Amino acid sequence: MPLQITRDVFITCAVTGSGGTQDKSALVSRSPKQIAESAIEAAKAGAAIVHCHVREPDSGKYSRRVELYREVTERIRDSATDVVLNLTAGMGGDLVLGAAEAPLPVNPEGTDMAGATERLQHVADCLPEICTLDCGTMNFAEADYVMTNTPGMLRSMGRLISDLGVRAEIEAFDTGHLWFARRLVEEGVIEAPAMIQLCMGIPWGAPDDMNTFMSMVNNIPRDWHFSAFSVGRNEMPYVAAAVLAGGNVRVGLEDNLYLEKGVLATNPQLVERAVQIVTNMGVSVMGPAAVREKLQLQKRAPR
Amino acid sequence: MPLQITRDVFITCAVTGSGGTQDKSALVSRSPKQIAESAIEAAKAGAAIVHCHVREPDSGKYSRRVELYREVTERIRDSATDVVLNLTAGMGGDLVLGAAEAPLPVNPEGTDMAGATERLQHVADCLPEICTLDCGTMNFAEADYVMTNTPGMLRSMGRLISDLGVRAEIEAFDTGHLWFARRLVEEGVIEAPAMIQLCMGIPWGAPDDMNTFMSMVNNIPRDWHFSAFSVGRNEMPYVAAAVLAGGNVRVGLEDNLYLEKGVLATNPQLVERAVQIVTNMGVSVMGPAAVREKLQLQKRAPR
Amino acid sequence: MPLQITRDVFITCAVTGSGGTQDKSALVSRSPKQIAESAIEAAKAGAAIVHCHVREPDSGKYSRRVELYREVTERIRDSATDVVLNLTAGMGGDLVLGAAEAPLPVNPEGTDMAGATERLQHVADCLPEICTLDCGTMNFAEADYVMTNTPGMLRSMGRLISDLGVRAEIEAFDTGHLWFARRLVEEGVIEAPAMIQLCMGIPWGAPDDMNTFMSMVNNIPRDWHFSAFSVGRNEMPYVAAAVLAGGNVRVGLEDNLYLEKGVLATNPQLVERAVQIVTNMGVSVMGPAAVREKLQLQKRAPR
Amino acid sequence: MPLQITRDVFITCAVTGSGGTQDKSALVSRSPKQIAESAIEAAKAGAAIVHCHVREPDSGKYSRRVELYREVTERIRDSATDVVLNLTAGMGGDLVLGAAEAPLPVNPEGTDMAGATERLQHVADCLPEICTLDCGTMNFAEADYVMTNTPGMLRSMGRLISDLGVRAEIEAFDTGHLWFARRLVEEGVIEAPAMIQLCMGIPWGAPDDMNTFMSMVNNIPRDWHFSAFSVGRNEMPYVAAAVLAGGNVRVGLEDNLYLEKGVLATNPQLVERAVQIVTNMGVSVMGPAAVREKLQLQKRAPR
Repeated sequence: MPLQITRDVFITCAVTGSGGTQDKSALVSRSPKQIAESAIEAAKAGAAIVHCHVREPDSGKYSRRVELYREVTERIRDSATDVVLNLTAGMGGDLVLGAAEAPLPVNPEGTDMAGATERLQHVADCLPEICTLDCGTMNFAEADYVMTNTPGMLRSMGRLISDLGVRAEIEAFDTGHLWFARRLVEEGVIEAPAMIQLCMGIPWGAPDDMNTFMSMVNNIPRDWHFSAFSVGRNEMPYVAAAVLAGGNVRVGLEDNLYLEKGVLATNPQLVERAVQIVTNMGVSVMGPAAVREKLQLQKRAPR
Repeated sequence: MPLQITRDVFITCAVTGSGGTQDKSALVSRSPKQIAESAIEAAKAGAAIVHCHVREPDSGKYSRRVELYREVTERIRDSATDVVLNLTAGMGGDLVLGAAEAPLPVNPEGTDMAGATERLQHVADCLPEICTLDCGTMNFAEADYVMTNTPGMLRSMGRLISDLGVRAEIEAFDTGHLWFARRLVEEGVIEAPAMIQLCMGIPWGAPDDMNTFMSMVNNIPRDWHFSAFSVGRNEMPYVAAAVLAGGNVRVGLEDNLYLEKGVLATNPQLVERAVQIVTNMGVSVMGPAAVREKLQLQKRAPR
Repeated sequence: MPLQITRDVFITCAVTGSGGTQDKSALVSRSPKQIAESAIEAAKAGAAIVHCHVREPDSGKYSRRVELYREVTERIRDSATDVVLNLTAGMGGDLVLGAAEAPLPVNPEGTDMAGATERLQHVADCLPEICTLDCGTMNFAEADYVMTNTPGMLRSMGRLISDLGVRAEIEAFDTGHLWFARRLVEEGVIEAPAMIQLCMGIPWGAPDDMNTFMSMVNNIPRDWHFSAFSVGRNEMPYVAAAVLAGGNVRVGLEDNLYLEKGVLATNPQLVERAVQIVTNMGVSVMGPAAVREKLQLQKRAPR
Repeated sequence: MPLQITRDVFITCAVTGSGGTQDKSALVSRSPKQIAESAIEAAKAGAAIVHCHVREPDSGKYSRRVELYREVTERIRDSATDVVLNLTAGMGGDLVLGAAEAPLPVNPEGTDMAGATERLQHVADCLPEICTLDCGTMNFAEADYVMTNTPGMLRSMGRLISDLGVRAEIEAFDTGHLWFARRLVEEGVIEAPAMIQLCMGIPWGAPDDMNTFMSMVNNIPRDWHFSAFSVGRNEMPYVAAAVLAGGNVRVGLEDNLYLEKGVLATNPQLVERAVQIVTNMGVSVMGPAAVREKLQLQKRAPR
């Protein structure tokens, strides 16, 4: 049957990410306090879900330290503003090879490859309602870097996430990642209906043109839930693309630093802009309670 | 090559149409004066092109009277607000058959079938920069009505339009209409690069889901110009759809009467909303001068 | 979920059609005896379904005479070769307008517009397992001809077909026809799961490129049954296209007269060629009994 | 413009591959002599291009030894049967990680990561008309294996191939690989019009459903050349899919071992079957001379 435009949409704000963006914009939050505050402001602006990474408070460099996730989680949980918490579980899959004439040994600079349990330690500790699962291995824009999540790793992480009672948001960066997501559900690793994030326009995953996008949307089972985003200047166009294809929306400084050319953005500004697009399209924005019901999420305190 | 998002977009306002909408909304303009005023307000709100039908001033019923088109044209031309004028040439192709047990003779009630020259009399008289050409024959929502534009009629009208030095906006209501548009260009009836309007979601032409839409977009030669719209509650979502697919935008009371459920709209309000969507997506709105250059249009006074 | 390649396919042979092809190939059958014999040979070659029109035995011109359908039906029913009978109900919707400067009155030459009951008289008489329903109105290659099936006519014919206990094969020549097919099912006129024939590449309906084709396939509910064909030199490529998209196959002299350039074909030759393509693709060809079970058809003698 | 069905197609036979298939079928050739003979038989059956890997003659395990490539090349060059030679350059990008709880250190068992120059040593030595370039990094069906070709590696290999005057066949296993292929051409690493192989249905790259396939086809520049294949039971259906989408064909034991369930195939049998499908579709099969002209290839003796 034809795809339907989403009439009630939820917005996720991807607050800070793990990229080297802290040196490009002073508005990228670094400390748990800053991250939590930015998340809460995004929620006030209309985001029902906040997707958080953590960073080293001093350098702004990405981190996997559980205590940082813990502080972010508690600050968000303790705030007066309700929001669904989504923590990344993407860290610990960074592999940097040697240069083209000697790919091995692995380059320790930038490599951070952890085991499945270690990659989910903060999830086990913080018990967010959602955590991400980057569903494949691929090149990124850099010369020698590989985002590395093997089938074996994904099965292990998927089972651990399910056992924790946390909902996995499966991030698909290309059509093959989405295929493996269906396989994880067929194998019972993740329960149906699953929740998918289509990560478009990130080199060298799926490009964000509408033909590629629709081919991915067409391969998501109709009873699953999905969001989609693109990066940089296409972040805002993709707010509309996601809605048109029957999905939900993600914006935030993880994916794009600018409000317009030369004007750095804050998270609530990006969320407000998404709300503008969505409501002008005649679509309603869901709050966190409605999202919890729709996605069957359980709000829990950290352990 | 992948389709590109439009970065500079033009907005057409379809001011009043020919449907029986005048009894559904008092905001539908009827007299040439009202139509011209609504067109000018739409232009002030951001429409670079106004697409106009005329109506009988008293009843609001659609009309083909040249003097009404003439008055609309002169009022718009004489105003201080610059805008590209696009007059319909769709009238005169209305065929109503008898009911299912006796389709012939034709039902005179509602039937209005004119010859090619007669259908273009107002275009010859007013010399708008653009006029439409409905590129096919199909059922509409009503039981016995057929929008009737045969291949022979379209070739005749197309040649007449070209001879007048008016640019044809070829309206395609389904994939076969677009195929015939390409044929008209191959035959030299219309010059390349042609200008297409994808009319989506009008029963029983092409539905407005993204798969059908993209299949039409993929079949437009890349150097042509196109716009797209859908009707009713999908008018505003389609502002974004058109931009995402590399096209331009059309809104207006011809296609949708409501700002939101239960709230009747004016043309400038609909244009403003489109501008909101477009600019929040980071896309610029073109003015009439830029459109004339892009589409190689000539502004002329009526004969 | 992704579309699946068909692993068990049925082939329909469209035996003779109604076009003026009898003067282009002496192999186009004219009399009921010839039509029945060609149908039976096609069945022997692998067609599980034969789709039949009738023609005036002398001139070869298309006909709607019930006694001709009756003879075809009885000859096929009485033969030792089992095959599912599919009779056209497309005749009686031919409208020829006047030329471009005077579209009305209707041109009696070539016009044949009958009421719903009359268009189905032979179906009521012969009780084939399947009859077609051309689900819309559109231009064909000719200058002034319109294939005319209004929504009102289609609702009437659909109800009559359903009341007769005959299965409708809904022929969709463009995306809007398929939309109306879904509407007929929603309204209860035709029962779900419906049976669709995608008629591709017929000017000026949907072109037969893969993008347009897939957009139609994507809009068929997954539990419905569908076939697809194209015409002329693309008849054989479309055997493969239909299978790849999860559908079934139609070939026959109605759609294409040639085996290769300059070599006129017979129906069994075209069916054999389709069987070659299908079986080389590793796909099985279904017989009439399996098709009856799959489509829930009832074989009945004529009244 | 709509995609056109290929009317003159070339067939590549992928003779032996590098997978562990030698233990599944005794018909998988191992020694250079066997590989060359199978390639020549495939050429006689209709393959204009043979794509060859080499294996250790005793174990049948994949190999990168230059002398084995040399022997294959010379045997094929010296035979009376003309065929275009395409050597793999995919070897040397095999990375096997540790299991899910300890992904590093790399598992030496199965890991074979070579530098760019080393990976192309046999290409420099044999000077085939074509060599492949696997245009990305991704998971395969196995638990811990990653096919690893970073952007840096691909730029280095691409430049070396171009400098050798060998034509690169860029293998795209997912939409992001194709995006990077376009980038390589934009950067001048590979000359336009490039030659693409769409490798479909290989877990966990792009699935081989028609929607995903068409989204990749739509993103190949129209003046480039492309082939496409799928694996296992979908090898033969994809012969038709490639032709329908305007591409060329690849079959062979590298991608599929069976003629039908339980019946092991030889290369010439698979090529013959592809020829059957293609010619029954009314499409001509090109010989090696026509392919050389079309792709602007130069036949050269090894150094």
